[in-house]
Amino acid sequence: MTGTAAQKGTIYGVGLGPGAVDLLSVRADRLVRNARHVAFFRKAGRPGKARQIVADLLPAAAVEFAMEYPVTTEIPLSDPRYAEVLSAFYEICTARIRSLSEAGEDVIVLCEGDPFFYGSFMHLYRRLHTDYPVEVIPAITGMSAAWTATGQPITWGDDTLSVLMGTLDEAELSKWFAETDAAVVMKIGRNLQKIKRALITVGRMEEAFMVECAAMPTQKVCRLVDYDNNRAPYFSIIILHGQGRAP
Amino acid sequence: MTGTAAQKGTIYGVGLGPGAVDLLSVRADRLVRNARHVAFFRKAGRPGKARQIVADLLPAAAVEFAMEYPVTTEIPLSDPRYAEVLSAFYEICTARIRSLSEAGEDVIVLCEGDPFFYGSFMHLYRRLHTDYPVEVIPAITGMSAAWTATGQPITWGDDTLSVLMGTLDEAELSKWFAETDAAVVMKIGRNLQKIKRALITVGRMEEAFMVECAAMPTQKVCRLVDYDNNRAPYFSIIILHGQGRAP
Repeated sequence: MTGTAAQKGTIYGVGLGPGAVDLLSVRADRLVRNARHVAFFRKAGRPGKARQIVADLLPAAAVEFAMEYPVTTEIPLSDPRYAEVLSAFYEICTARIRSLSEAGEDVIVLCEGDPFFYGSFMHLYRRLHTDYPVEVIPAITGMSAAWTATGQPITWGDDTLSVLMGTLDEAELSKWFAETDAAVVMKIGRNLQKIKRALITVGRMEEAFMVECAAMPTQKVCRLVDYDNNRAPYFSIIILHGQGRAP
Repeated sequence: MTGTAAQKGTIYGVGLGPGAVDLLSVRADRLVRNARHVAFFRKAGRPGKARQIVADLLPAAAVEFAMEYPVTTEIPLSDPRYAEVLSAFYEICTARIRSLSEAGEDVIVLCEGDPFFYGSFMHLYRRLHTDYPVEVIPAITGMSAAWTATGQPITWGDDTLSVLMGTLDEAELSKWFAETDAAVVMKIGRNLQKIKRALITVGRMEEAFMVECAAMPTQKVCRLVDYDNNRAPYFSIIILHGQGRAP
C-alpha cells in the first residue's frame, strides 16, 4: 500500500470490540491482518489491551508504535497542567502518524470498543481528520457484550436507554435512574458505593446486574446485590434492563 | 452438527450489525457460512433485511425458515387482538425452532443489529432460553454506524448518552434533549416533525444530524436543518453529539 509522497496513506481508526478476537468485524480483522504500521495506546509498562486483543492476528513484520500515556497520577484533573501534558502527548502521537501518512503508508490505529464511543482515538482524530484521509471502523461496544452476558435483552419496544458515567454525582445518578427505562453505567471503579446508594434511593437496586470483563475469558456476571467487592475493576459495567414500555 | 435426540441443537441469535456484510463479526460470519438451518423475520412479500445482508454468505444447501410477520395494519396497537395475533405468530415460529433443536440441529436466527438491543429475536428468546441451549452473538448497532457516518465522536469524557424513541411525546422528548449531553433518536418515520419541534424548543436543532441507512450503500448524512423530507425512512437515526462534559 505504499504510494508516492503526493498520495497520503489512510489512517484507520479500527474498533476492536469488547475483547474477544472473533468479535472483531470482518473488516477490522482484514485490516489488522494486513497491517504494515499499527499504533495503539497503552499505560507505561503494560502490554496494552487493544494490542492484546489482536496479538494472534498482527503480522510479525508490522511496525508497532506504542503510544504510552504520560504518568499524570500526581496532577489533579482540574489542574490546567493535566490538559497540557496530555495535549503535548497527543501532538507527539499525531506527528508520527502524520509523517507515516505523508510517506504514503497506511496506519492502523487499534481502538478498544467502538472508536467514537468514549474512545481515546478521538483525540487523534480531531487533530488529523481535516488534513489526512481517516477512516473509522465502528465496532461492538463493551456495553453490548455486557448486556448480552446478562442473558436478558436491554431494551424492548419504546424503552429509553441512558448511558451514564459513575463519575456523576449521587443526586444526578438517582434522577437518571428514576427517569430512564434501561441504563448502562460505566466508569465504576471507586464510584461503586455511590452508584449503589443512587439505585437504592429510587428502588432499582434489586434489578441491577454487574458485569466484569464482558466477552473476555475472565467474564463475571452477577446481580449487583450479590457483588461483595467495595470497588470494581476498570472494565466493569452495571446494567439495568428495560421492561418494554410500549405506546 | 447433528446429534442424538437426547442432545439438543443450539439456537444461535446471531447479530448481523448495521447492514454491511463485512461489519459482521468474525464469529457471526463463521456461523452463517456454516449454517444448516437459518431462520429470519421478514414482512410478507419482502426479501427481509437480515436475509439480504448475508445473501452472499449463506450456503446453498442451508434450509431457510422465513418467519413472515402477520399483517396487522388494520388492528390498532392498543387493541388486545394485536398482541394475540403476534403472540400466536411467535408460538408458531418457536415450535419449528424447538423441533429442529430437539432433532439435534443447530439453528441460526439472523438478527439485524444487536439481538438484545430493540431486536425481534427477544420474542423468540424469552420463549426458548429456559428449555433450549441458546447463544446470543452481540453485534455492531445501527446507532454505532450512524454516529460513525457523521464523522464526529458521539461521546467524550463523562458525557451522558440517551437513546430515545421518536414515539415519545413532544414534551418528554424536549425534557430528554435538555438534560442529556448526547442523544440518538430512532423510530423516526412519522414522528419527524414532532422530534424537530422538541429540538427547537430546547435550542439544539442546529446541532442535530440525520443519518439514513447507515453503513449501507444507500447511506445519506446531513444536518437535520438541511433535511427536507416530511417523513424519514424506517432505517434513519437522528444524532446529537456530546461535547465532552468532564468532571
